[in-house]
Amino acid sequence: MLAHRLSRQGISTIAVDTRTRHEIETTHRAGILESGSVDMLVRGGVSDRILRDGYEHHGVELRYGGHGHRIDFTEHVGSSVWLYPQTDVFIDLADARERDGGDVRFGVTDTEVLDPYTERPAIRFIDDAGEEWTVRAKIVVGADGSRSMCRNLIPAETVTRYFHEYPFAWFGILCEAPMSAPELIYAHSDRGFALISQRTDSVQRMYFQCDPNENPDDWSEDRIWSELQARVAGDGFALTTGPVFEKVVLKFRSFVQEPMRHGRLVLAGDAAHTVPPTGAKGLNLALSDVRILSDVLARFLESGDERILATYEPTALRRVWRSQNFSYWMTQMLHLAPGGDPFAVKRQLGELETVTGTRQGQAYLANAYTGWPREEGL
Amino acid sequence: MLAHRLSRQGISTIAVDTRTRHEIETTHRAGILESGSVDMLVRGGVSDRILRDGYEHHGVELRYGGHGHRIDFTEHVGSSVWLYPQTDVFIDLADARERDGGDVRFGVTDTEVLDPYTERPAIRFIDDAGEEWTVRAKIVVGADGSRSMCRNLIPAETVTRYFHEYPFAWFGILCEAPMSAPELIYAHSDRGFALISQRTDSVQRMYFQCDPNENPDDWSEDRIWSELQARVAGDGFALTTGPVFEKVVLKFRSFVQEPMRHGRLVLAGDAAHTVPPTGAKGLNLALSDVRILSDVLARFLESGDERILATYEPTALRRVWRSQNFSYWMTQMLHLAPGGDPFAVKRQLGELETVTGTRQGQAYLANAYTGWPREEGL
Repeated sequence: MLAHRLSRQGISTIAVDTRTRHEIETTHRAGILESGSVDMLVRGGVSDRILRDGYEHHGVELRYGGHGHRIDFTEHVGSSVWLYPQTDVFIDLADARERDGGDVRFGVTDTEVLDPYTERPAIRFIDDAGEEWTVRAKIVVGADGSRSMCRNLIPAETVTRYFHEYPFAWFGILCEAPMSAPELIYAHSDRGFALISQRTDSVQRMYFQCDPNENPDDWSEDRIWSELQARVAGDGFALTTGPVFEKVVLKFRSFVQEPMRHGRLVLAGDAAHTVPPTGAKGLNLALSDVRILSDVLARFLESGDERILATYEPTALRRVWRSQNFSYWMTQMLHLAPGGDPFAVKRQLGELETVTGTRQGQAYLANAYTGWPREEGL
Repeated sequence: MLAHRLSRQGISTIAVDTRTRHEIETTHRAGILESGSVDMLVRGGVSDRILRDGYEHHGVELRYGGHGHRIDFTEHVGSSVWLYPQTDVFIDLADARERDGGDVRFGVTDTEVLDPYTERPAIRFIDDAGEEWTVRAKIVVGADGSRSMCRNLIPAETVTRYFHEYPFAWFGILCEAPMSAPELIYAHSDRGFALISQRTDSVQRMYFQCDPNENPDDWSEDRIWSELQARVAGDGFALTTGPVFEKVVLKFRSFVQEPMRHGRLVLAGDAAHTVPPTGAKGLNLALSDVRILSDVLARFLESGDERILATYEPTALRRVWRSQNFSYWMTQMLHLAPGGDPFAVKRQLGELETVTGTRQGQAYLANAYTGWPREEGL
């Protein structure tokens, strides 16, 4: 996305990825796009496929005490989110780069950043044909994910890393089944959290809170469906089941590295920050970084004024910490802490009742979930 | 307040308190009344003195990162709160009972509830003249505060007690000085929380977060003012100082006992629940219990239908758990955890920025702070 946006401003880029295109296309990740992210794809000239193949969600359901409580995004903040798998976002982006003649190298190895503290940093890598390249540039962007090597190049004495570990994980499945509900369901139950989400008409994604050390092999299909159903029971609601073809345990944590830039080396997305998946902020936050960064880089490259580069981090971090808080808040409101603190559970129910039972609570959640759509400079 | 409301419905009551009227009148407690609480005093026929001697607050300031951020209650939810000390609320209530010929006995000793599990429970006590009384009634209400003896009379096997302990306390002062600000200031700082509140034109109440084992004697006036000023510094804001005439360390916790009733023995206020003072819910919650309870008791005594009594607890608990959550939320958002978790502090700032920086966040806080004023059945 960054390469696409820069190319639209006449800036040439080379993107390298250690994974192959096929690997990325088949790794299932997030699936909810804020309206601002959709705008970047559609109005930004990547593709309008999302409008045909995606599903617009005008709300979300919070479920607790055996009842569903819908929060209507459109009613409260005039916005929506879109269900559209990250793999499809990637396909659209890769196709757009190919269409526009962009230089993207998949499946490279032996990547290295050279001279990161100079005005002419470079990347060295071996391409998928075995040829070694050194590319010198004005800027190197480390958008290399949660296991980023670029972030380790920022001098340690300038770096602060913010962590929060959660004492639970998500057990996730992909299954062949029709949708159980038209919108996402975030469920609080006395057995723990569950998330009913969708992928397509025939493939669904569901999760339930589990121990971080849970072994997927211990979970038969019957046991999985029985656990999921128990966590969303009530109001006669029944999941539509089907064959489970992927089981994963997702450990999660909150993480931010500051600064997000050192000289000409800039971090974006998971390389600089990770959020727990509750609230669907990860992919959207990466896109937000890139939206801010592409404008900053274009202005910097036009003027050569280093002070412009310095405006990236403060703007990006405003949304990073809002999103960190939102993801933490959703997680804390919906998950059971191991050990069982009865006060905490009753307080969660008091919070869920306030959020779903008042216009102000609904609007507060809707505004954050859809990505603070009316706000300037975020 | 309960006796006042019941007497207005033709129900006779006897209220007893182990403290003297003088003791209660001189014990400084809370000072912020929700608009619903003000209505109970004024429209409920207790007194309209609050309209003359109280101060209407149309908003509150959250202060962090060296800047103040005002949240306007009236703009967002069309409501307000009133600054009016709990001691004055008490004086108005005691005066109203006296004016209306109510039976209130202060300074009693040797209190005891007799036959609490029968249809004719009684209280026994020795009055301030040394005379022993036994009063048999249809209902005994334990509104006997956070050290309630009545709550211990509910059979243990039916009781659940919900606790949350906080690892910090408030250092509170009363001082002779003009107001430093027209409305309350809740401050987050890297030295910990502070609250700038008011009492009258010439007496102010201020607090700062401290260790629960802090000794008031270790704090000179200079040290107190310097600590308070440091926590609210920025934007050129300066506290108006003056002689400190009371220093206290308030330990605080969250507590709820369920059930709030067993047969004809009913709990109200702090006897059943305690909240941390952040958010000013304690007194208001007690008044809300009494508002619900007076209606329930009137209907019960009219019809004799025991099922009506059972409607008190579920209605009261809705607000109790909302208020527990709100008080917990305000506390967690504004206080520093001992030990210093850098992620937690940054997340708090992200939350404060979201709450103060969005209309939805402001409205969410305003609605809770003013007591969910537009909601039926709460």
